[in-house]
Amino acid sequence: MNLEALAAGVRAASRVVGRSSSAARDDALRLAADLLVEGAGAVLEANVEDLERAEDEGLGATAVDRLRLDEDRLAAMAAGLRAVAALSDPVGEVVDGWVRPNGLRVERVRVPLGVIGVVYENRPNVTSDAAGLCLKAGSAAFLRGSASALASNRAIVAVLRRALAKAGLPEDAVALVEDPSHEAAVAFMRLRGLIDCLIPRGGPALVAALLEHATVPYVLDGDGNCHVYVDAAADLDMATEIIVNAKTQRPGVCNAAETLLVHEAVAEAFLPRARQALGGVELRGDERVQALLPGVAAASEADFATEFLGLTLAVGVVGSLDQAIEHIARYGSGHSEAIVTTDVAAADRFTREVDAAAVVVNASTRFVDGGELGLGAEVGISTQKLHARGPMGLRELTCTKWVVRGDGQVRR
Amino acid sequence: MNLEALAAGVRAASRVVGRSSSAARDDALRLAADLLVEGAGAVLEANVEDLERAEDEGLGATAVDRLRLDEDRLAAMAAGLRAVAALSDPVGEVVDGWVRPNGLRVERVRVPLGVIGVVYENRPNVTSDAAGLCLKAGSAAFLRGSASALASNRAIVAVLRRALAKAGLPEDAVALVEDPSHEAAVAFMRLRGLIDCLIPRGGPALVAALLEHATVPYVLDGDGNCHVYVDAAADLDMATEIIVNAKTQRPGVCNAAETLLVHEAVAEAFLPRARQALGGVELRGDERVQALLPGVAAASEADFATEFLGLTLAVGVVGSLDQAIEHIARYGSGHSEAIVTTDVAAADRFTREVDAAAVVVNASTRFVDGGELGLGAEVGISTQKLHARGPMGLRELTCTKWVVRGDGQVRR
Repeated sequence: MNLEALAAGVRAASRVVGRSSSAARDDALRLAADLLVEGAGAVLEANVEDLERAEDEGLGATAVDRLRLDEDRLAAMAAGLRAVAALSDPVGEVVDGWVRPNGLRVERVRVPLGVIGVVYENRPNVTSDAAGLCLKAGSAAFLRGSASALASNRAIVAVLRRALAKAGLPEDAVALVEDPSHEAAVAFMRLRGLIDCLIPRGGPALVAALLEHATVPYVLDGDGNCHVYVDAAADLDMATEIIVNAKTQRPGVCNAAETLLVHEAVAEAFLPRARQALGGVELRGDERVQALLPGVAAASEADFATEFLGLTLAVGVVGSLDQAIEHIARYGSGHSEAIVTTDVAAADRFTREVDAAAVVVNASTRFVDGGELGLGAEVGISTQKLHARGPMGLRELTCTKWVVRGDGQVRR
Repeated sequence: MNLEALAAGVRAASRVVGRSSSAARDDALRLAADLLVEGAGAVLEANVEDLERAEDEGLGATAVDRLRLDEDRLAAMAAGLRAVAALSDPVGEVVDGWVRPNGLRVERVRVPLGVIGVVYENRPNVTSDAAGLCLKAGSAAFLRGSASALASNRAIVAVLRRALAKAGLPEDAVALVEDPSHEAAVAFMRLRGLIDCLIPRGGPALVAALLEHATVPYVLDGDGNCHVYVDAAADLDMATEIIVNAKTQRPGVCNAAETLLVHEAVAEAFLPRARQALGGVELRGDERVQALLPGVAAASEADFATEFLGLTLAVGVVGSLDQAIEHIARYGSGHSEAIVTTDVAAADRFTREVDAAAVVVNASTRFVDGGELGLGAEVGISTQKLHARGPMGLRELTCTKWVVRGDGQVRR
């Protein structure tokens, strides 16, 4: 089937899903969870097909591991669908409302986006995760996974579509683009009027392709070059715990810290402690850091701009809070920025003046995450400013509609 | 000065404006209003220059009228700036917040976007209107008007910059791109990282250029192919008043009605009355309309898809509420859609199932407007779903930031 015809089918299904009860949508998610576990055999068989092809094509070990499904991973996918089903429905929330002097009653109501396009790479679990979130938010999920996971994704989508049918909803509310070509990816991004919103889950190449080609609006899940700033008035025990946690608790994720900035007034007391506590982490410091921590390698300009996503940390000494804020404005990616301080004025200025999706006072940057902040589902973390900024929950997969009720008002 | 250097200056200024008090920003707006009136001579002189060039170049009369400034229009621009200054500041609003089980206090706070790029056509009043709204919302205004209004825009921007300086704010918080070339327009749309949001105010050519070239996120102010549906259970007096108002009160605007749909049960009673009440309006009807209203021209498929922006109205008879909803889904542009009915169930289904920025029950579509709905300032009416949908006020010129406060929490 050609892409436009497929998209038209998804769009038609989205209208039915958009007016369905949340009970029906939740049923579909729970049925899908059951079917994923019951039908594990077929999904795992398809996955073996992908794995064999990946090995033939010499895919790297990490990529192969991401591609691999087993009973445990399927059980986790099923549990994810059940957890999303248990969240409250974002659709129908009255965001605000008032009455006009002429008696018009005005409300803004949360409504489904319609068709959400998700472009992702080779983890097949994203297929059920993304579809579950879209359906919960009242939208259809139009999925484009990677070629390497095609058989697995097909098998998972077949399960999801069976669950939709069993729940009395249209199967086309979940559909997969099977054409693996770059041309099909570009065409997908240009289905304006058929797809309402694109959620890309991929690396810099995908982002560049979107910026260049997409005509469908998108929400970008960006990089995190996150800073922890230890202020002159910091509790140094707390600062040590926070930088260790922010850097090492899970270094490969976007909300891990990449740079430590230390106020000069506490640098001499803090840096040696931090070095010791950060045991396995390679530090790269500016000149003032190197003077206080002999043997530390020099940090280049590029180091301060790098999201290492591993056990490397750039370290700088700053002369003031202003310098810290300037450093973050220059090198930060607008993701998550933390200050450790006991000084109310410093905390207030940092939270106000640092331009990022999230500013954190006296806690680890690792909390900047949908689950940790209490959003329930985690759709991603947006570093753009329009529509959604920071951790995205189900609400960010919806939009609003104005509802205006009168009793015959006309405009004079 | 080259475009990137200019943009970097605006960006630096935006950070100062973003942390300025609303008192300082309101002062700047009021000072600009005073200076526009006091310095009217220089602005009008510049405007004469534009008008003379426009006449030499043979610009049409409507375009010349849009370009023309006089004392009254300057006074209206000044009044606009004062009205915006008097609105409450959207920046700093705590959108929501809660406390997590681990004691983290989480808030989402409304913050300025940073640099707002406004691309507009030849009305020079947009220069002060747009700059006023951006400054009020805590952002810098980076303006690109049309070549035909260059001298006028320069003079107005000079006034705005003097007012900023007098209020102690950086002049670069308002800047004008003076290069009139298409290349400069495209480069402007691609200043990602320097401009945070684009607000286009222009026609289909501008929208097409944005879709093709922009890498900066934008909020589109789209067309309005708006419908009024007269239900089987409509009060026909009310329906008559509403369609007359929606079609004729100001036919050239996006929230005017372009199609009237009538339920077959009331078509015979309603259509002749509507025709009479719609005196000067040219009706184009489907076959069932033509049967009831002899002499009415046939409506083509294209007529139902057209935003006439004038005294022409497409008219159709539908067999049911479902058919009306289907018709709107097929031909509507997602702007404003109205139903006239006394039937609660019909009103509820229409408001829920019609996918548009605004759905209106028993009132004119003409109320779908920032001022009429109570937003104070009118930035435009978005027909996109992400970030802002429907009438946009000052809030839609801001974004949010997560502020997370702890007392040493780290993630386990």
